[in-house]
Amino acid sequence: MTAVIRREHDLLGDRDVPVDAYWGVHTLRATENFPITGTPISAYPHLIDALAAVKEAAALANEELGLLEPRKAAAIVEACREIRDGKLHDQFVVDVIQGGAGTSTNMNANEVVANRALELLGHEKGQYSFLHPNEDVNLGQSTNDVYPTAVKIATVFAVRGLLDAMAVLQDAFARKAVEFREVLKMGRTQLQDAVPMTLGQEFSAYAVMIDEDRSRLDEAVQLIHEINLGATAIGTGLNAPVGYAEAARRHLATITGLPLVTAANLVEATQDCGAFVQMSGVLKRVAVKLSKSCNDLRLLSSGPRAGLGEINLPPVQAGSSIMPGKVNPVIPEVVNQVAFEVIGNDVAITMAAEAGQLQLNAFEPIILHSLSESITHLRAACLTLAERCVDGITANTEALRRTVENSIGLVTALNPHIGYTAATDIAKEALASGRGVAELVLEKGLLPAETLADLLRPEVLAGSGSPRA
Amino acid sequence: MTAVIRREHDLLGDRDVPVDAYWGVHTLRATENFPITGTPISAYPHLIDALAAVKEAAALANEELGLLEPRKAAAIVEACREIRDGKLHDQFVVDVIQGGAGTSTNMNANEVVANRALELLGHEKGQYSFLHPNEDVNLGQSTNDVYPTAVKIATVFAVRGLLDAMAVLQDAFARKAVEFREVLKMGRTQLQDAVPMTLGQEFSAYAVMIDEDRSRLDEAVQLIHEINLGATAIGTGLNAPVGYAEAARRHLATITGLPLVTAANLVEATQDCGAFVQMSGVLKRVAVKLSKSCNDLRLLSSGPRAGLGEINLPPVQAGSSIMPGKVNPVIPEVVNQVAFEVIGNDVAITMAAEAGQLQLNAFEPIILHSLSESITHLRAACLTLAERCVDGITANTEALRRTVENSIGLVTALNPHIGYTAATDIAKEALASGRGVAELVLEKGLLPAETLADLLRPEVLAGSGSPRA
Amino acid sequence: MTAVIRREHDLLGDRDVPVDAYWGVHTLRATENFPITGTPISAYPHLIDALAAVKEAAALANEELGLLEPRKAAAIVEACREIRDGKLHDQFVVDVIQGGAGTSTNMNANEVVANRALELLGHEKGQYSFLHPNEDVNLGQSTNDVYPTAVKIATVFAVRGLLDAMAVLQDAFARKAVEFREVLKMGRTQLQDAVPMTLGQEFSAYAVMIDEDRSRLDEAVQLIHEINLGATAIGTGLNAPVGYAEAARRHLATITGLPLVTAANLVEATQDCGAFVQMSGVLKRVAVKLSKSCNDLRLLSSGPRAGLGEINLPPVQAGSSIMPGKVNPVIPEVVNQVAFEVIGNDVAITMAAEAGQLQLNAFEPIILHSLSESITHLRAACLTLAERCVDGITANTEALRRTVENSIGLVTALNPHIGYTAATDIAKEALASGRGVAELVLEKGLLPAETLADLLRPEVLAGSGSPRA
Amino acid sequence: MTAVIRREHDLLGDRDVPVDAYWGVHTLRATENFPITGTPISAYPHLIDALAAVKEAAALANEELGLLEPRKAAAIVEACREIRDGKLHDQFVVDVIQGGAGTSTNMNANEVVANRALELLGHEKGQYSFLHPNEDVNLGQSTNDVYPTAVKIATVFAVRGLLDAMAVLQDAFARKAVEFREVLKMGRTQLQDAVPMTLGQEFSAYAVMIDEDRSRLDEAVQLIHEINLGATAIGTGLNAPVGYAEAARRHLATITGLPLVTAANLVEATQDCGAFVQMSGVLKRVAVKLSKSCNDLRLLSSGPRAGLGEINLPPVQAGSSIMPGKVNPVIPEVVNQVAFEVIGNDVAITMAAEAGQLQLNAFEPIILHSLSESITHLRAACLTLAERCVDGITANTEALRRTVENSIGLVTALNPHIGYTAATDIAKEALASGRGVAELVLEKGLLPAETLADLLRPEVLAGSGSPRA
Repeated sequence: MTAVIRREHDLLGDRDVPVDAYWGVHTLRATENFPITGTPISAYPHLIDALAAVKEAAALANEELGLLEPRKAAAIVEACREIRDGKLHDQFVVDVIQGGAGTSTNMNANEVVANRALELLGHEKGQYSFLHPNEDVNLGQSTNDVYPTAVKIATVFAVRGLLDAMAVLQDAFARKAVEFREVLKMGRTQLQDAVPMTLGQEFSAYAVMIDEDRSRLDEAVQLIHEINLGATAIGTGLNAPVGYAEAARRHLATITGLPLVTAANLVEATQDCGAFVQMSGVLKRVAVKLSKSCNDLRLLSSGPRAGLGEINLPPVQAGSSIMPGKVNPVIPEVVNQVAFEVIGNDVAITMAAEAGQLQLNAFEPIILHSLSESITHLRAACLTLAERCVDGITANTEALRRTVENSIGLVTALNPHIGYTAATDIAKEALASGRGVAELVLEKGLLPAETLADLLRPEVLAGSGSPRA
Repeated sequence: MTAVIRREHDLLGDRDVPVDAYWGVHTLRATENFPITGTPISAYPHLIDALAAVKEAAALANEELGLLEPRKAAAIVEACREIRDGKLHDQFVVDVIQGGAGTSTNMNANEVVANRALELLGHEKGQYSFLHPNEDVNLGQSTNDVYPTAVKIATVFAVRGLLDAMAVLQDAFARKAVEFREVLKMGRTQLQDAVPMTLGQEFSAYAVMIDEDRSRLDEAVQLIHEINLGATAIGTGLNAPVGYAEAARRHLATITGLPLVTAANLVEATQDCGAFVQMSGVLKRVAVKLSKSCNDLRLLSSGPRAGLGEINLPPVQAGSSIMPGKVNPVIPEVVNQVAFEVIGNDVAITMAAEAGQLQLNAFEPIILHSLSESITHLRAACLTLAERCVDGITANTEALRRTVENSIGLVTALNPHIGYTAATDIAKEALASGRGVAELVLEKGLLPAETLADLLRPEVLAGSGSPRA
Repeated sequence: MTAVIRREHDLLGDRDVPVDAYWGVHTLRATENFPITGTPISAYPHLIDALAAVKEAAALANEELGLLEPRKAAAIVEACREIRDGKLHDQFVVDVIQGGAGTSTNMNANEVVANRALELLGHEKGQYSFLHPNEDVNLGQSTNDVYPTAVKIATVFAVRGLLDAMAVLQDAFARKAVEFREVLKMGRTQLQDAVPMTLGQEFSAYAVMIDEDRSRLDEAVQLIHEINLGATAIGTGLNAPVGYAEAARRHLATITGLPLVTAANLVEATQDCGAFVQMSGVLKRVAVKLSKSCNDLRLLSSGPRAGLGEINLPPVQAGSSIMPGKVNPVIPEVVNQVAFEVIGNDVAITMAAEAGQLQLNAFEPIILHSLSESITHLRAACLTLAERCVDGITANTEALRRTVENSIGLVTALNPHIGYTAATDIAKEALASGRGVAELVLEKGLLPAETLADLLRPEVLAGSGSPRA
Repeated sequence: MTAVIRREHDLLGDRDVPVDAYWGVHTLRATENFPITGTPISAYPHLIDALAAVKEAAALANEELGLLEPRKAAAIVEACREIRDGKLHDQFVVDVIQGGAGTSTNMNANEVVANRALELLGHEKGQYSFLHPNEDVNLGQSTNDVYPTAVKIATVFAVRGLLDAMAVLQDAFARKAVEFREVLKMGRTQLQDAVPMTLGQEFSAYAVMIDEDRSRLDEAVQLIHEINLGATAIGTGLNAPVGYAEAARRHLATITGLPLVTAANLVEATQDCGAFVQMSGVLKRVAVKLSKSCNDLRLLSSGPRAGLGEINLPPVQAGSSIMPGKVNPVIPEVVNQVAFEVIGNDVAITMAAEAGQLQLNAFEPIILHSLSESITHLRAACLTLAERCVDGITANTEALRRTVENSIGLVTALNPHIGYTAATDIAKEALASGRGVAELVLEKGLLPAETLADLLRPEVLAGSGSPRA
């Protein structure tokens, strides 16, 4: 008869774990203690990979310093590489919201790496006398330096994915800016008709906004490259041998390809969550801009008859069962909602960062959770917005031109040519009579038709702003 | 050869869906349009049940009004009951964050109910000419009345689960209040030693806080019983026959067992998210109190040597690999983090509610998502706090008594007996010398030992507050 | 030569205060310690009045219990009444943001009352041997019961002012609902044309929203009537004589006219800020709805030519120097901004409430500050919105009717009469050709002109929603 | 008889203003329209100065381009300089919360500058035919470029003040880090005793945190140097002559001494509030760290008998009337509250930025208001924390050393020397018996007294972290 369980032991006593589980007793207790969301940390593949990278780097450093047998080190390294190849992710089962400052996540990683390494060494899972989760896999480490380091690496890679998606969206807006560069329309301030511009200028602004946000996000992610590996429990490096911090950092930089640096003050680095607050703040900025752009897209495409009706979003699904033919701006709407979520997450991250006490912030798990959600949801939102909405937008060029021709705001452009007083009279008469400014100017013989036509050319009306766009 | 797909049609054209899928073309498009979180709406079982309840109620109302053949109605009702029995939940696959004001969720429900009903009628899935997702299952309905109604019903049931969990936690605190009713300790204001109290009074306060929050939550959930079924698209009830709203409400009340009422002004009810904002605000209140209580538990159990060391939380997992024997307050920590999440969710809900325009709030899906998370995570947090922490708390009674005996604050209680001036002198000498107030009072012969002992009895020191607790 | 200063003494030593200042040494130190905003607490007249009411009630209770000489009590009562008549408010000079859980505010009140009472007794300010700020004015009290009690009373009166202003705004919307009850327009969902309604229904929804919010606010303010006077330092009532809490409550209820009750558990009541969190949450709800309504007003009045142009807001100031004749929706805009402030204040209040530790919340001053701002600014916003905007709104009735006549959504109403297939064909042709639904129906002879006209009557189109409005 | 009023005229008609007011009819209407806070914009002296700088730069540019008579330009320049010297600030009377995207603030500035310039030219206030608020002072400008530019300049100068105050606080912490560099104490993680460190390391971490935040804030303020002057209404620069934008920027850079640059895309720059969101996000980061540090200070100074009692904050005011001798941590408490306010303001700013529509954000006034509050209150908080708290902190060195000697965590440092098994046994016995680790090690003869003493030297215990600090 085959055993289905194995027995493991910790400070609190013995517990049975499934014989084929790579995780062990510490992970088991954590799953029982934190039955909060039902979502395991495997939902963050970047984090799992980063944990494996840290464990691999630590093993190499420990081997280099003569603290870990080469045979053990090789097995740990191999196990970590398998994980970084996408294997065993389903063994990372502790809940995404957990107490303990990430200890359960670190323990889960130690146990999975140890049990896979044991197998690679020809042992069975659970035979920790040959290779131990804490004494070998976690050697020279503490959750308090492993976990923040892994969270930072995971964040860097996640943000890179977001930056790529933002670039896709920026390109989509920029292509429309070119396509619509001669589509004249009324600009608006405070939702009131202001002065003419082109639809291309409007879309160019969206592209530029994203470009700026990408720069800011790129700056914020640089701050995340500072790690505290080697700090051990509180940053004093107690029990971490001389040379360990530097060796571990060097190996980790090689493994990840990231220009990691060790914080100058490890006590500070171990308790500080400032870089996460800043990152979340910039993600919030991105969310604000995306949401603003989507608000505009929904407004400009309102109609088809009783709205602004300036642009058409591509239909991607039926809008209503009760109203035949109705198509709704569902893609911008989902982006708005992601933005609201990101803004809410920023508050959660802020509170978690503020609540950290003394030498450690115990609330990093919720920071990781909220940051991960914000980054991955923003990424998905950018891609779906680009591909399922912006790419297919068309302009109602003729209707837009008519709103300019009918606009009273047009008179602003004639100001220097017919004088402020005449301009004001024209404006008043246009408003009262419902007639057009150009028509009235011609009727009153204030300008020759040719001159007027020239003044109302798109490149003149959309003015000095355009060459700068 | 067996077909693995079937072809379905909508306004945008034809699409293939897996032949055994109960969902159809509308759901398919939605899953493609909203690849945001990877979490399907089946993650909210209360919502799935509530949608089925609404569809069942509508079918019964339509049958009653002679608008739906009894045979079709019976099949729809049966399909809905299966769903409410927990079946087919895996067919609710659209993403929890979605555009379209819930249309995709409603469409998903219509399709699943229709296809299951078709099977019950002896047809194959997709043979909509016999029973149609929109024309039969959605008859007389609009997403704009179905979805908010279902969200409200789901919220009511979810909140009931939370209320139960809060009661469990309240009882746990109350039992400790009784257990610790004679454990004298120093009360603190602004973290500075103030005047004596009992540990029982301290725990009683936690119990009372939860009791009050339960009352507030119960009031808030009452506001959720007002529904807008029958409003159709914008609240004017266009195309909903006379009597439909009332019949549907009546059946829905029977099915759910809830005292549902139809809003007096359906136009207002269809666009208003105030009840959700209020509900989230009360959940935030609950979170604030829970977090405050957990902050206290962590503080009171700090130590074991260099902290306050007043109480001991039961160990539930090893705290650290690097520091042997360390046990951490991981359960209160996870509750704190849930609280931060709930507070962040409140901001997301607030923004979504504020962003609703004109006759409909398009952002209810994120409201549902955030509310569901807040409610279910708070429920889990209350239960794990009660069962894995509060129930096992013990008091360091002797150490606590010593802090009272050594306290300078004790002098406040002697004020009326030895006079303010003598009390002040005692206080100064105690602070400077490090000696105890009682000792000094005896030494100076200010009070007989017997009187002093009497004045320092717990029931006197903990004062008039206790009989009220 | 006249003295310009007088010398006062506290635990930290001697300090000179201006001879004509009613405040004393404690207030002086507080103004030096908290140079944060430059705004003194006299900016909250309701709080100053409430503090005076509490001091008056305490004096009467103390006199009744034989603890305070009638002569002293009479002088204190007289001083408090002067303050409640609006005098001496300029003597309340400590900063609105202050440390110390409100101690400085309480001390400021004690000193002003004492010095005015001394004058009434024929003494000079500062002659505390005749009547002492702490020993007489503060007798039987602690900041920790006085301050929360005063904050609650101040909040009740401030909220009453807000409720009145909300009623004014509700009436303004309701009058417009009647005025516009026959103005037919297109309703919109997700900013897309949906089905017809009346402008009266739209404004009625705004009125109903406010009415509901008033109910919720009224419920929330009831929770504020529970006070903790008599709790003294931490709720144990140490040193407060038997009968004091009840007598003080009774006098305070009489003075304020409020149905005040003493909390059942004073330990809990002294540390709990739940009622403030709830109040702020409801204020946030009010803000959300106001902001939504103002978003709509700005959108409906967009134009004059290139916007929706459904309604006209009354011009209240010139909009632009560069664009002649431009008028902007400045009143709704200022209301939006107040709403954003209130939502931000809610986060500040939440954090302050969560951060309270053990037996007292040290952060009540920021709670008071934020609550006061939210309430008074919302009040001002409601009044200016009613009087300077809603009252003067006019409708572009003819243009609105044309959007209905031209609407494709109109076909929804004809569905039951011409059949779904014909309706869909009409809808498609209308969208493609730009022609009207009614025109096409007549042209194709699908309905007699008379029947069509009947079906398109406003009371039919705006449907069942209207009689409920 | 002397006139007390003068009559002014605008689009809405005639109004009387006080004859000695420098503001005019536009300002008058704004004060009536926005009776929200009662606080005039003169509460932001940096903004008033910045507005004057913009007006001065515009006048110089216009003169340079031959658009403004030198005589008029000189008078405008002189008036602006007076304002920048601190004069006439009391004439800036519109409310800090206002609708209209800042138009009323710009109009207020135009009117004050014009009327003062008129006086300088020998005319009376209100004789606008000689020099006009809009046509001359506002020449070539729009609120939509003037206001954001002024807000940015004001923010730069305000942030500089904050950076200075943060440097003061950093120095205060750094001095304490040196003073306490040999004070050994127990470090804590999750409020549980961890491993030894020095109090100097703890204070060094606070200094380093502020130093990092200063760097981040300095980076964020760089982004504020990009202005949109010359954009006019919507960024197209309509009616702004060629060369104006560059000339105005050049003069403004000279006047302010700031390296201002004109945005590359003025359409984007005119509608984008990203730089303010980012700035507020970094202020939030600063607030989070300050609050965390103050939480720690309050915790470390808790006591005097029943708390951690590690450090003593200098007493700055009496703490309680009812508890003689009680001194509270009022300075850290006020800093916490400022932090909560800043975090709330960030939410308000976020919502205002998100709500901007199309070519302009109408809600910049609340952004300015909230940013100004955050910056100035943080500045005051840093200074009062440095000067009234940190500078006077003392350490309870002996008590701290005893907690290390008594600590079980000490055993972690002996691990490499006595072995993990022996260490664990010692730890268990210490916890059970209440005895010290060192005492037990000596008693069992595990280490010679000399070796033990050497291992427990502060520089060893506080470990490798210290040289990095």
